[in-house]
Amino acid sequence: MATVRNTIPEKTIERLSEYRRTLLLCHKQGITHIFSHILAGIHGITAVQVRRDLMLIGFSSDTKKGYDVKVLIDFINNILDSENTMNIAVIGMGHLGQAITKYFNGKRLKLRITAAFDVDPEKVGHTIDDIPCYHMDDFEEVVSANDISIVIVSSPTKVAARLVLPIINAGIKGVLNFTSAPLNFPQGIVVENYDITTILEKVAYFVKENEENTNN
Amino acid sequence: MATVRNTIPEKTIERLSEYRRTLLLCHKQGITHIFSHILAGIHGITAVQVRRDLMLIGFSSDTKKGYDVKVLIDFINNILDSENTMNIAVIGMGHLGQAITKYFNGKRLKLRITAAFDVDPEKVGHTIDDIPCYHMDDFEEVVSANDISIVIVSSPTKVAARLVLPIINAGIKGVLNFTSAPLNFPQGIVVENYDITTILEKVAYFVKENEENTNN
Repeated sequence: MATVRNTIPEKTIERLSEYRRTLLLCHKQGITHIFSHILAGIHGITAVQVRRDLMLIGFSSDTKKGYDVKVLIDFINNILDSENTMNIAVIGMGHLGQAITKYFNGKRLKLRITAAFDVDPEKVGHTIDDIPCYHMDDFEEVVSANDISIVIVSSPTKVAARLVLPIINAGIKGVLNFTSAPLNFPQGIVVENYDITTILEKVAYFVKENEENTNN
Repeated sequence: MATVRNTIPEKTIERLSEYRRTLLLCHKQGITHIFSHILAGIHGITAVQVRRDLMLIGFSSDTKKGYDVKVLIDFINNILDSENTMNIAVIGMGHLGQAITKYFNGKRLKLRITAAFDVDPEKVGHTIDDIPCYHMDDFEEVVSANDISIVIVSSPTKVAARLVLPIINAGIKGVLNFTSAPLNFPQGIVVENYDITTILEKVAYFVKENEENTNN
């Protein structure tokens, strides 16, 4: 990411988000306490890692019954969430944009997809999964009117570079870029380039390595 | 990931995949040489990082004209790619599964999506973007007949846990899991849990941090 970070490492933030989803599911199922090694097992990591992450955020109410699920959820909420809901826009409502929108709709309280952008006349002016879809020409105006601070870029890769200036000009603070084109922004704008090809190539590489190690 | 790794760190593998995509684009545009700081700039990192990554894989043909694009592509190919094409299956052909399939079709030579699985009668038995879609009941048989070694899980989160046993039984070697349910596999199977919510919550967290730092 492009900005200076405080003391909680990126990987810990990712795991806190993952722990919270598991904890919310536990809470929903009526589970009131969970041991660190159980939480660790669900996420395929060690209990030491879980305890280290929670120590980093100052959570230390491990009892004989394990962590209090509800208390830990609230604690993570305080770390991860803003006081107010953050509004998100999706740029590019193809399959990926629609998958993401559908996935989020109604799921998160503190992060909310409130607008979509495209240039396809069959999409612009309509609502898709309850999200109004605007033309990219109206980007700045809509972002300002809807107080949008984060964009998800799920456009075709070949148009991604052209989105950088509008995103800067509209005052967007965070970008999650799913295209294959790495996007660079000035300091102060958080960027996560998140190309599916990269992750798939990584999995394939380690599959290959495992096979070679087995054969040797 | 769940397996013991060799000496090239995961993050370097990710970046090699990203460098290669940029280099392929350069090559296509007729660019024969590229300096480390140019490659670094495109990816929003330092030239030191680029040089360190390439040193790690034993590439050191930096000349006065920069890296030879074609030679570097071949070098990264040798590191990342298997000798033979790896076949991939997508489990769950909703919007996300279709987005991924469309994205990959014809793009990668060494990784190829060759089968899809679903339970929806409107999809099973048809081809979607040239990929045949099978019923999940036939998973083991189709995986074996098509020599599939990697699966992408893009099913609804609530059915993800039920896919673990079929995946193990079919002898799958690598799993890229897009659902919100963390999946655990025995050692020897590479797993990447890659939940979009996590990344979005991470971006939101650092946006919040930036705002708080600016206000203080």
